[in-house]
Amino acid sequence: MRITIIGSGNVGTHLAAAFKNAGHVIVQIYSPHIHNAELLAYHIKAQAIGNLNDINSDTDIFIISVKDDAVAGIAEALAKHNKIMAHTSGSVDLTALSTFSDMSGVFYPLQTFSKNKSVDFLKVPLCVEGASESVTAELVKLAQTISNNVNKIDSAQRKVLHLAAVFAGNFPNYLYGVAQQLLEKNNLQFDLLRPLILETAMKVQKHMPDEAQTGPAVRNDEKTIGLHQQMLNDEPPLKALYGELSQLIIKNFNAKHGLK
Amino acid sequence: MRITIIGSGNVGTHLAAAFKNAGHVIVQIYSPHIHNAELLAYHIKAQAIGNLNDINSDTDIFIISVKDDAVAGIAEALAKHNKIMAHTSGSVDLTALSTFSDMSGVFYPLQTFSKNKSVDFLKVPLCVEGASESVTAELVKLAQTISNNVNKIDSAQRKVLHLAAVFAGNFPNYLYGVAQQLLEKNNLQFDLLRPLILETAMKVQKHMPDEAQTGPAVRNDEKTIGLHQQMLNDEPPLKALYGELSQLIIKNFNAKHGLK
Repeated sequence: MRITIIGSGNVGTHLAAAFKNAGHVIVQIYSPHIHNAELLAYHIKAQAIGNLNDINSDTDIFIISVKDDAVAGIAEALAKHNKIMAHTSGSVDLTALSTFSDMSGVFYPLQTFSKNKSVDFLKVPLCVEGASESVTAELVKLAQTISNNVNKIDSAQRKVLHLAAVFAGNFPNYLYGVAQQLLEKNNLQFDLLRPLILETAMKVQKHMPDEAQTGPAVRNDEKTIGLHQQMLNDEPPLKALYGELSQLIIKNFNAKHGLK
Repeated sequence: MRITIIGSGNVGTHLAAAFKNAGHVIVQIYSPHIHNAELLAYHIKAQAIGNLNDINSDTDIFIISVKDDAVAGIAEALAKHNKIMAHTSGSVDLTALSTFSDMSGVFYPLQTFSKNKSVDFLKVPLCVEGASESVTAELVKLAQTISNNVNKIDSAQRKVLHLAAVFAGNFPNYLYGVAQQLLEKNNLQFDLLRPLILETAMKVQKHMPDEAQTGPAVRNDEKTIGLHQQMLNDEPPLKALYGELSQLIIKNFNAKHGLK
């Protein structure tokens, strides 16, 4: 397919590379900061543009990968080209596009992307939704050229997925950072924790999190919980967070086991 | 070496297997529930005992892998054998053993273990401490036969490591479970999140968590944060947790970038 990428952020960058690798033609890359578009376009041999007036209509699909607030404005500007357009956001409703065009959809990769780290796209769950069956079919077809994990997900489900992804990805990463800061303060290397972090994530690749829960809270080990909270006395927000998460783990365990 | 394992929990089980694989002799395995000791002993061809009076003195080291509260009592009972004894706990001070014997130490594997999942022990950080230099040297030597990641860590540092491990392992696993529950309620498969969970942990194997942070909070995307909190209206504790973690991420980002 001939694909135009709108936006040159983390998601746009990784999608552009995956499309290119799959043999598609990247027609143009747009960014309001043309320098960003140029950087990305250089790598995947596409044309960089910094103005939506320079859009080449000879394309099959616009992939709109911009900030959530900007999606609708972009869709309005692109509608006149009468091509499929799909945004890549977890939390923007399909209607943000379908207001302007029937040929609209969503192409949401459920993964965390950083510019400086490559990702095996074949394993990235792609969540696809179309304003019509024919658009859905086109998006599924395109998605299957870059991923073995393609799912039809409607806007309501996608919002739940996005919320769940914050709990499963963004928040754990923040907690890794808390651990790193605790170690740094005590002249210990973050390296010591890296195998634990990886193993914790590996465990739930086959098992369910409930089965994998370890630590003082799930054992209701009040002595260790008390010791840990005492160690956080000079960090009141972390002390509160420790207490809250521990209580939630205990509550969760008791609920599973019919205790109160 | 000739090694006696006291306790047949997750840590004891994995250590026993790793010692056995490295060519050591497991003399006996003790558990107050002899059936548990028998199960483990069967796999690694050791003698199971359910009574500390049946301890065979012809051993080089006792590895004490029992609940934190039970460590001191076991140490008191074993001291008369005059062999090295080391506990495996993250939060128990060396003095719990050294009160009873000079030949005491700590042999703490900084990893999460489940009985039904094997672990590449060579990569497990082993944190070793001895009551004397000669005990430390013996423990380091033993540790190096099963791991390439051996560290001398004193009791105060070990407690920090253990606290950090709760933030980096136990709490993220709980959050995976929250995500799973959100998906289940909406008839979505946890499978959809597994690649994200793994990639989030993979990212910090080379990078620092701060550099890897993504999501609505670090973008200070109030609209999405508000939408997510609204979606959690019927789960007040999770709504509160979402708000608290988001605020901490925003605060952390601002502190790093000199914003207030």
